[in-house]
Amino acid sequence: MHIGLIGLGKMGFNMRQRLRDAEIEVTGYDRNPERTDVESVDALVAKVPAPRIIWVMVPAGEITDSVITDLAGKLEPGDLVIDGGNSKFTEDQKHEALLAEKGIGFVDVGVSGGVWGLANGYGLMAGGDPDRVQAAMPLFDALRPEGPREESFVHVGDVGAGHYAKMVHNGVEYGLMQAYAEGYELLEAKDIIKDVHGTFRAWQKGTVVRSWLLDLMVKALEEDPGLSKIAGYVEDSGEGRWTVEEAIAHAVPAPAITAALFARFASRQDDAPAMKMVAALRNQFGGHAVRA
Amino acid sequence: MHIGLIGLGKMGFNMRQRLRDAEIEVTGYDRNPERTDVESVDALVAKVPAPRIIWVMVPAGEITDSVITDLAGKLEPGDLVIDGGNSKFTEDQKHEALLAEKGIGFVDVGVSGGVWGLANGYGLMAGGDPDRVQAAMPLFDALRPEGPREESFVHVGDVGAGHYAKMVHNGVEYGLMQAYAEGYELLEAKDIIKDVHGTFRAWQKGTVVRSWLLDLMVKALEEDPGLSKIAGYVEDSGEGRWTVEEAIAHAVPAPAITAALFARFASRQDDAPAMKMVAALRNQFGGHAVRA
Amino acid sequence: MHIGLIGLGKMGFNMRQRLRDAEIEVTGYDRNPERTDVESVDALVAKVPAPRIIWVMVPAGEITDSVITDLAGKLEPGDLVIDGGNSKFTEDQKHEALLAEKGIGFVDVGVSGGVWGLANGYGLMAGGDPDRVQAAMPLFDALRPEGPREESFVHVGDVGAGHYAKMVHNGVEYGLMQAYAEGYELLEAKDIIKDVHGTFRAWQKGTVVRSWLLDLMVKALEEDPGLSKIAGYVEDSGEGRWTVEEAIAHAVPAPAITAALFARFASRQDDAPAMKMVAALRNQFGGHAVRA
Amino acid sequence: MHIGLIGLGKMGFNMRQRLRDAEIEVTGYDRNPERTDVESVDALVAKVPAPRIIWVMVPAGEITDSVITDLAGKLEPGDLVIDGGNSKFTEDQKHEALLAEKGIGFVDVGVSGGVWGLANGYGLMAGGDPDRVQAAMPLFDALRPEGPREESFVHVGDVGAGHYAKMVHNGVEYGLMQAYAEGYELLEAKDIIKDVHGTFRAWQKGTVVRSWLLDLMVKALEEDPGLSKIAGYVEDSGEGRWTVEEAIAHAVPAPAITAALFARFASRQDDAPAMKMVAALRNQFGGHAVRA
Repeated sequence: MHIGLIGLGKMGFNMRQRLRDAEIEVTGYDRNPERTDVESVDALVAKVPAPRIIWVMVPAGEITDSVITDLAGKLEPGDLVIDGGNSKFTEDQKHEALLAEKGIGFVDVGVSGGVWGLANGYGLMAGGDPDRVQAAMPLFDALRPEGPREESFVHVGDVGAGHYAKMVHNGVEYGLMQAYAEGYELLEAKDIIKDVHGTFRAWQKGTVVRSWLLDLMVKALEEDPGLSKIAGYVEDSGEGRWTVEEAIAHAVPAPAITAALFARFASRQDDAPAMKMVAALRNQFGGHAVRA
Repeated sequence: MHIGLIGLGKMGFNMRQRLRDAEIEVTGYDRNPERTDVESVDALVAKVPAPRIIWVMVPAGEITDSVITDLAGKLEPGDLVIDGGNSKFTEDQKHEALLAEKGIGFVDVGVSGGVWGLANGYGLMAGGDPDRVQAAMPLFDALRPEGPREESFVHVGDVGAGHYAKMVHNGVEYGLMQAYAEGYELLEAKDIIKDVHGTFRAWQKGTVVRSWLLDLMVKALEEDPGLSKIAGYVEDSGEGRWTVEEAIAHAVPAPAITAALFARFASRQDDAPAMKMVAALRNQFGGHAVRA
Repeated sequence: MHIGLIGLGKMGFNMRQRLRDAEIEVTGYDRNPERTDVESVDALVAKVPAPRIIWVMVPAGEITDSVITDLAGKLEPGDLVIDGGNSKFTEDQKHEALLAEKGIGFVDVGVSGGVWGLANGYGLMAGGDPDRVQAAMPLFDALRPEGPREESFVHVGDVGAGHYAKMVHNGVEYGLMQAYAEGYELLEAKDIIKDVHGTFRAWQKGTVVRSWLLDLMVKALEEDPGLSKIAGYVEDSGEGRWTVEEAIAHAVPAPAITAALFARFASRQDDAPAMKMVAALRNQFGGHAVRA
Repeated sequence: MHIGLIGLGKMGFNMRQRLRDAEIEVTGYDRNPERTDVESVDALVAKVPAPRIIWVMVPAGEITDSVITDLAGKLEPGDLVIDGGNSKFTEDQKHEALLAEKGIGFVDVGVSGGVWGLANGYGLMAGGDPDRVQAAMPLFDALRPEGPREESFVHVGDVGAGHYAKMVHNGVEYGLMQAYAEGYELLEAKDIIKDVHGTFRAWQKGTVVRSWLLDLMVKALEEDPGLSKIAGYVEDSGEGRWTVEEAIAHAVPAPAITAALFARFASRQDDAPAMKMVAALRNQFGGHAVRA
């Protein structure tokens, strides 16, 4: 099997390696000349044998959109585009329709595992036509961890369902991290707790809260005790927002995931206008002191 | 009528004036020599005719406790102590028992209205024995706004009930302020909104959200457009915490009031440990950049 | 002045009356033959003198969209359409563009005050071209409460800004109601509180939490002590959802308003899937009993 | 080594077995005659050789308190009591003082792992004097999973610290379960998701959200697809409440854990008073329909 892979960043670069380790031939393209295998998308299309499978692994939004639009003009009927980025599920139907006009297939895949995926394998969630998902199965089998397929791969539904499942996965991830982080802050705040790092370390085996994220907490505390080198400033990249929007659209209460999202927003504020107003109000009615 | 008033701070000072305006004789004591009428609590006790009513209006907690304990040793059977501060309701039963040993009565009163109470009158919530509450009614009538008694005074229940109602009042107040403040921040964030101050001003009459707190928001924005002189740093003084604790004790979901409390906690953090951990975790699994 | 008013439901019916009380001539149209003044929109257009002002007061979404689209084909250059419903602000730009093609003006107005607006007047927030807003000022002055214009009317910004301000107003309203309601539930839950209704009644004058919504709480408790005739089932009609979506879009933490929205969602669930899962998990790891 | 174990319920029964499997002699006592090894606590004390170690594994609160008070009268100087239940950390200092009067030692241990601990081993968090913790180390080593001690055992600090760490562990657990459960409900609500069970199953290997709780979700969905046999009614047993109370006491924002706690409260309400009030208010101001 010989596929094309567009996007060789933190995720794509490792995925190329893991695919090659499984003896899949990969022609990769990236704007970074040190990483790319070919000089252009045209060159990539020329090199990959038809019917082609082109895996797109670039940032969600405008970049993914422009790459797929570009591919729609360059590929041939029977080819297949796989979007493995973190695209919003509503984009997938648009891309499928665009490609279908040219007879090109489309599958969306949510890919989880981060920078550890090269070694551990990736968790995969696919959406699309069953035949097309089947056509790409050798790739999924190469990328996912060893063991039973159903423990690391799922065909969730039609186009969009893969990215939807990944969106929810990331929303859940926000909530999990926030829960652990609240526990961390409370343990740090309590004088009778003498060994916060050791406590998390001891949760790794046997406890109800053991998880891979917990293992990473332990690792982070080993590398930087007290997290002294890291500011409490947290970005968000879309999936958390979309998860809450979808929760609202379906009248699903999602208070823990939303709390995690809002905590990130607040972490980026130096002087929140809302809290200025609360301070101003307390001053107005009670004469309570304010900070300038 | 001639009463004693201990504590002439932001609240007590104005209350003495409002009581005197209603032709009630008040002997006030405060550690501040510029405000006090007498040199000591002993002098106050000596001056107020028995059976005495002594209104205590000092900070909740240790100070209130020491003042009431002190009074227990100085007053006579038949006297009455009124705690008008923001004491926790659990303190009231303790103080009632302590005073009852000496034949001294006790009534707890929640007092709302802030620095505006002198002009507008105070909202009052009383707890205690009906006869004792009745004995203090001239004071309540003097302190509350004009108009029907039931619109600004309530005898909520036995000892502790007055402070409990005031605690809930303050918890609600936290939630109300937070809701307005979130609306303020969102209006400030939206480019198409050209007149945030004017919007709040126009909500004062006719809208569903009109309130006294809204009037104070308008006043705050008039005095300091954009709230440029006020930091987004908000203290909390106990009642909000107790309200959430009581909600938990009675299995009452209180997400809005609790959100307001946590927003205050977060407003006082420069670099929240929890958010450091979330940043560290994102870095661990995804290689996401962190701020130092 | 003689205007057209389309939609004579709970809001429009009262607004027609209030406009007429201010000696503004109103030709109203509604599908309800008992309320309408004319048989059709065509008849309304024929009867109102040019340049016409047509106030649309119908349910937001498809109905408003179809009424405005219809008007775009029936009105003349120089006419003005005012959307006074609870349309999403993103609809306004679309409607303005559609009408502008025909030389017809558009103004969006958020109208607050509910069924009490007939007697009390309405709070109004307008978006649009200053000349067009000015042209409709006699209507705004008739609809709003007496007193200074700026206390009940604001020209918030360009088209869409009026509905945006009303959206935030309603979001704030969700938060305010939730805060009061949490306080109500906690007071009801506490045995030492003997007079919950009386407590709210006593908050009406003098306290920091006094408001019109509080007055309505007192009225509701008078009409139905213990709220025995009302189920804890709460609908939501859009503005609350949009407020949270906008908060997310602008990275504004809005935990209290969101808590209010999620509480409504939860109030409509008999057996929440999320809580089934939590129960299932507790059973899995701890053998904790579940309810069937 | 030969110890006494009081309480042979879901946890203690399995722990006796696991200790015996490690060739530790255990004399167990339980009120259940089918489980107990001896007829009374007196008989247990008589049988266990001094200096005795007595592990108490009974429900937190009054029962634990009465068992430990009873032991204080029956044990000898040099003996050691270990409380392995879910006691509140504030109880531990009380129990240590009570036992110290008799020269008896005390160690508190948080034990996690639920009904799976027999097979998998338990995660353990200990508080107390280092020598006493050391004396019990063979028990800890027998109870915890195989592998490095620090991955499943921690000496957190002085008396109380073990239960404190376990309390936070359980608070985190609430948050984790709520996050997964929200994701579950959203996936169930979305029409394009055709295989919710399969999605969770595929998250087990490779993804960022993999965890033991996730494995249990998969197991629960296998045993009862759609969770049709389980009501969305969730109890809480103390540690979640205490975690939030401690967060409040230390001004630590804990919105995700608190959301989980409140969701449990709400899951047990048929007709929440707060939501009755919100419905009543909407009816008051807007004439919105209510359900009876």
